[in-house]
Amino acid sequence: MGIKQIEGGICAVDGIKAWGLKEDGKGLALIVGVGDAVGVFTDNNIKAAPLRLTMENLEAGRISATIVNSGNANSYTGNKGVMNARYMANMVGDALSIDPRSVAVASTGIIGKQLDIPKIERQFNDLFTCIEKTPVASDACAKAIMTTDKMKKEIAIELDNVHIGAIAKGSGMIEPRMGTMLAFIYTDAKIDTDTLKRCLKSAVDKSFNMVVVDGDTSTNDMALLVATGRNGEIEESIFQKGLDFVCTRLARMIAKDGEGATKLITSRVTGAKSEEDARKVAKAIVRSNLVKCAIYGEDANWGRVICAIGNASADIDPNKIYLRIGNGEELVGFVEGGTIIEMRSPDAIKRVMNGKTILIGVDLGMGKSSAVAWGCDMTEEYVKINAEYST
Amino acid sequence: MGIKQIEGGICAVDGIKAWGLKEDGKGLALIVGVGDAVGVFTDNNIKAAPLRLTMENLEAGRISATIVNSGNANSYTGNKGVMNARYMANMVGDALSIDPRSVAVASTGIIGKQLDIPKIERQFNDLFTCIEKTPVASDACAKAIMTTDKMKKEIAIELDNVHIGAIAKGSGMIEPRMGTMLAFIYTDAKIDTDTLKRCLKSAVDKSFNMVVVDGDTSTNDMALLVATGRNGEIEESIFQKGLDFVCTRLARMIAKDGEGATKLITSRVTGAKSEEDARKVAKAIVRSNLVKCAIYGEDANWGRVICAIGNASADIDPNKIYLRIGNGEELVGFVEGGTIIEMRSPDAIKRVMNGKTILIGVDLGMGKSSAVAWGCDMTEEYVKINAEYST
Repeated sequence: MGIKQIEGGICAVDGIKAWGLKEDGKGLALIVGVGDAVGVFTDNNIKAAPLRLTMENLEAGRISATIVNSGNANSYTGNKGVMNARYMANMVGDALSIDPRSVAVASTGIIGKQLDIPKIERQFNDLFTCIEKTPVASDACAKAIMTTDKMKKEIAIELDNVHIGAIAKGSGMIEPRMGTMLAFIYTDAKIDTDTLKRCLKSAVDKSFNMVVVDGDTSTNDMALLVATGRNGEIEESIFQKGLDFVCTRLARMIAKDGEGATKLITSRVTGAKSEEDARKVAKAIVRSNLVKCAIYGEDANWGRVICAIGNASADIDPNKIYLRIGNGEELVGFVEGGTIIEMRSPDAIKRVMNGKTILIGVDLGMGKSSAVAWGCDMTEEYVKINAEYST
Repeated sequence: MGIKQIEGGICAVDGIKAWGLKEDGKGLALIVGVGDAVGVFTDNNIKAAPLRLTMENLEAGRISATIVNSGNANSYTGNKGVMNARYMANMVGDALSIDPRSVAVASTGIIGKQLDIPKIERQFNDLFTCIEKTPVASDACAKAIMTTDKMKKEIAIELDNVHIGAIAKGSGMIEPRMGTMLAFIYTDAKIDTDTLKRCLKSAVDKSFNMVVVDGDTSTNDMALLVATGRNGEIEESIFQKGLDFVCTRLARMIAKDGEGATKLITSRVTGAKSEEDARKVAKAIVRSNLVKCAIYGEDANWGRVICAIGNASADIDPNKIYLRIGNGEELVGFVEGGTIIEMRSPDAIKRVMNGKTILIGVDLGMGKSSAVAWGCDMTEEYVKINAEYST
């Protein structure tokens, strides 16, 4: 029951074919494969048109294909936006001779602009004849859905005799409260929809929902899990472990690839009274602009972590906090049971803050619950990217 | 009952003397004047030592003096921090022959470092002999409490026959959920403590609590209102108007002077179902890093405003929203009853986005409640300031 990472991304999953392409920042990806499907969607009160369509289509519990465009979120685009999302589903349905209501549609990019449907249609015609079951195809999909992302997010694992493969995107407007920007997870395990739902919710809560890049929850967040059932049955607990692994890895990739980021921040909170408290504190730390700026500047300004902990509206006692900062190899203690550790090695602090992966370890001393959250540092580059986005 | 802005800051208030000084980024300010006093304090679960002492001292409802140091927040400094805050109160009590329990103490600066008491004592000895009732003295105080602030925050008004004078500071770590970083408001009106409390809470909710610079609520936020009673009685509703004016002006100054900011953002939300909804939406807009970056880049990426509205967990209907952006002289409509206004003048958009004061007007079309929030744009400079803060 070991988890083994393999090549191939989504195409490592039996029953899945795909292709993707991109031109002038506008990408299109198509994933084909019939299976039981469940999804989680943004909590934002304003949901993009493709999300609403996909939520509706998922009610039947099965999908045959997924189409994703990047460069335009088709969000806040009124009735025309809904019609355009439907148009995309119909286009896929016609070409593949499948029910358009079995097509999941997703979009990512700027909010408030209508889609360039002729362009999407042209891209689709180039695309749908190319679908194949190869690592290259998954790679093409993963790249097609990128916007400000600098690295593609793709993973595949083998688990017992089944596979889980996934691609994701996300770099800015990231504080998912459901899925991340977009994640498409496929498996060939034989598994019923109720179990899929339970597993996806649990995995998303531990992974995508624990990532903060900038605290802005998008209108387009969505994570989709499709099981083709082409391979054997699997115990729920084992499948959950595999799914957790996949989602957590993707979540870390998203945090690491945060807009303008130079460092990955992992905040690990232990000793919380409840899991909710642990999650609140862990996220408050990676959400704080001030913590993020300090880590960018390699400044061990740990007081900002304390301030963030205090802001988390969790049950804490300032006198019980332990705080350590590490780089994956070395850890420096700053606070011990509420007392500031005055004797610290400036060299060790320098080495730790210089790391590319910064671990902030907090023990609240209140109980036994824990949580991990991921984020990234905040840089001038983040501002630059987002000051010029739509121009 | 007109409000007339006058010179003199806190020293415009009868019964108030003050002085302040600063060296090497460490400032000290002393305000002397006996009066009924009420305060509001940060919501952060971790409260700095001086705040806890001041909260205790305010229980008697009267203070004789306020001492404030800048450059060190005396926050998360354990028992020693509490002793140091007490030491500051005693120092003032001894010098002025007043009860140290009638001294309010406040601090602002870095978290997690012990105060340099010998330095504070030295500064205090230079200071307390200089106190006087002049505009220069208020100016000296306002400057002494600045940290990353670029402009002093000071105001005084005449209202009927009474005065309200105030100074404040605040530039980063700003999303007050009580007072702002620090605000000291004095009046010579004769007014009972219960009324003062009511008025302060109401004014703070409309002003400091509606400012967001970076979404980090400090451990040291505090607003203090002292009434010397040296002048006449005043109707509560009139006093409230004057106090609202003073607090709102200070709040705007804080937003405008946000770390690295180049533009003031005012978001005005109308047509909300409840005042709470209006406040949530107004704050969500000025809190969004993405909105702030877009405004810095003079990019009319209004979809991010829509995204922020959706994130506010208020009761909204995407199809009823009106959205306009202005510069104080000109307004451009982007959304009308949920429909994107496609015909817009690019020149007008350019002029509007080029303004130094950006007004974001949102009507939710759900009811009759409204709110205003203030913030600033996010710039590379914000990151730079906060990447190098403690080094």
